[in-house]
Amino acid sequence: MSVEQESLDLHRRLRGKIGTLVKTPISSRRDLSLAYTPGVAEPCRQINQKPEAVYTYTNIGNTVAVITDGTAVLGLGDIGAQAGLPVMEGKCVLFKEFADIDAFPIALNTKETQEIITTIKNIAPSFGGINLEDISAPRCFEIETALKEELDIPVFHDDQHGTAIVVLAALINALKITGKKKEEIRILINGVGAAGTAIAKILFNFGVKQLTVLDSRGVIYTGRDNLNLAKEDLITLIDKDNKSTKGSLAEAIKGQDVFIGVSSANILTIDMVKAMSKDPIIFALANPVPEIMPDQALKAGARIVGTGRSDFPNQVNNVLAFPGVFKGTLAVRARSITEGMKLVAAQALAEYISKPTEVQILPDPLDKGVAEAVAEKVSAQAILEGVARQ
Amino acid sequence: MSVEQESLDLHRRLRGKIGTLVKTPISSRRDLSLAYTPGVAEPCRQINQKPEAVYTYTNIGNTVAVITDGTAVLGLGDIGAQAGLPVMEGKCVLFKEFADIDAFPIALNTKETQEIITTIKNIAPSFGGINLEDISAPRCFEIETALKEELDIPVFHDDQHGTAIVVLAALINALKITGKKKEEIRILINGVGAAGTAIAKILFNFGVKQLTVLDSRGVIYTGRDNLNLAKEDLITLIDKDNKSTKGSLAEAIKGQDVFIGVSSANILTIDMVKAMSKDPIIFALANPVPEIMPDQALKAGARIVGTGRSDFPNQVNNVLAFPGVFKGTLAVRARSITEGMKLVAAQALAEYISKPTEVQILPDPLDKGVAEAVAEKVSAQAILEGVARQ
Repeated sequence: MSVEQESLDLHRRLRGKIGTLVKTPISSRRDLSLAYTPGVAEPCRQINQKPEAVYTYTNIGNTVAVITDGTAVLGLGDIGAQAGLPVMEGKCVLFKEFADIDAFPIALNTKETQEIITTIKNIAPSFGGINLEDISAPRCFEIETALKEELDIPVFHDDQHGTAIVVLAALINALKITGKKKEEIRILINGVGAAGTAIAKILFNFGVKQLTVLDSRGVIYTGRDNLNLAKEDLITLIDKDNKSTKGSLAEAIKGQDVFIGVSSANILTIDMVKAMSKDPIIFALANPVPEIMPDQALKAGARIVGTGRSDFPNQVNNVLAFPGVFKGTLAVRARSITEGMKLVAAQALAEYISKPTEVQILPDPLDKGVAEAVAEKVSAQAILEGVARQ
Repeated sequence: MSVEQESLDLHRRLRGKIGTLVKTPISSRRDLSLAYTPGVAEPCRQINQKPEAVYTYTNIGNTVAVITDGTAVLGLGDIGAQAGLPVMEGKCVLFKEFADIDAFPIALNTKETQEIITTIKNIAPSFGGINLEDISAPRCFEIETALKEELDIPVFHDDQHGTAIVVLAALINALKITGKKKEEIRILINGVGAAGTAIAKILFNFGVKQLTVLDSRGVIYTGRDNLNLAKEDLITLIDKDNKSTKGSLAEAIKGQDVFIGVSSANILTIDMVKAMSKDPIIFALANPVPEIMPDQALKAGARIVGTGRSDFPNQVNNVLAFPGVFKGTLAVRARSITEGMKLVAAQALAEYISKPTEVQILPDPLDKGVAEAVAEKVSAQAILEGVARQ
């Protein structure tokens, strides 16, 4: 049976993938009086007197909202928030299975940036953290930025930062294998949506000096036509020395050490790979069909190839990042997820592989030890930066 | 150990009372590809093509939001939404334990009526039903009315309708015991908050002809001072023939067959009970201390006494109503919970006791067969009224 049909059957049979887990079964009058009235009044009073007690007496500290407006669901695009719910429920399953975090899906009835911000602010007291999901660029940037400013709980747009963390981890190990140096390499990122933007930023923060970023019109640079504010901000940040690099992918790819594609199927040709520097590193992350198929890339001389797919080596899968990032963040009640916390998450992921090889630069997405390893580093970094509250 | 201390310990030990239940554990690559990418794209596509398929492929049809702004939590008042979370989690436990419904608490960061309405509308696509909880009167009326108009999923303010349904059930059985007739009896309701208002309405819809309703200033009637809009609406509905009845509780109680107190401790005196008609029925629902203690009421001549407390007979407890009401409503995907559905819920509850006695007019709140009995009647009524969608 095809994975599509089997998935449909599974979803229909179980009627979705999550439900409510009860920690306090009710089978006696005493149970009822402890979990509900009159006993429940006492934790309420305690929280009323000391607001942070909400983390002691409720599940809020382990609860994450997985919120979407349905505008950029998987590769399906703007299919609507309810149509995105199977993905959101799936994400909640992964949160629980990989990090023992209780997540709940919120599908929004609005696509208005300001109304999304207000709505999320208004329900934020129910959660210990906010995972934004499948919200289209550039609105996702404005929404995340506003919420990070206004809320004192972590807000994390996984399509941006989850992907960026895993890509950086993959890069760190690819550099070990090839002996290339982050200060010297040239990296081309094809695609400036949520993922591309975040990847560029994390690479910049990691210390990469030569980044070239392309949208569908070619290299972006200060003053180019058709730049939205998010692209202008990005270019200001990363591309101070790079204004002369212009043109199409075919031109810009020449001499690059790394290609990172978060764009569309089959746009990287064999000739382009051949035009890259020695030992090229290719992360072709378009899904389900990558920018170049791994066998083609390898034939053209690529040293290391990663994709988003589970049927090839080196799968760049967000599940390697978000469970551990949130676990580490919630464990110390960090106010936010900082750039530093994202960097150590990537380093933890990279270090999880003791001896990276061309076909193993990342942990197996099913390895349930990964989240704990990431969480430890994230917690420690939060404490170091003073954003932890316990 | 006191119930307060034991409840605190329980809440601290478990860190709250609910979590996320996973229906699809992830232990293989195949599991991951079915519950998440790439398989999950297929249910998303199906819902995008046919919106009602969201009920087939997700858990939405069994999911209820338990939403509060924390303005009227238990008897504690306006303690804030996060301080109300232990109650909301408790409610979610009861939903699951008594009706196998997956409920999730939403604590709101606003007390503005219009902003509450907008926020709930904006998150409604995540839920099959909305349970409003512990929102103060009269704002609760406006919020519920607006949401019922604008959403096509059931919206139910439990403090109003849950209480009203159980009180009506208790009354039905009390009338059987005393041989009194609904068309002939006189009922006094003391308290015109959320519960009092809803009780008056359901009794009116049930066919009670002589209702007297008092707030803290005495009997309310058309043209009286200090009436808010909700009280004026109520009086217009129920009190057409009753304008001459004015005055205090001590005066208005004379000759009443039924006293329903949703007010405050110890305000019903022995003399007042003595001034009622023969075989008085007393529902003294103030919590934790009722309007009159049962032994006092019985000594003064009361035939039947109910309270909100579990340590006396005839406990009026919302858990008898809301699980079954939602179960029956969700089972047929009813668009709303109509007055008719509330009436049959009360009748189902009353009929659940085959031989009512003075000390047993209601089922035991712990009896897990109750919800199913209520649900069957509610589903049937929804179909009968044409509000069911399947």
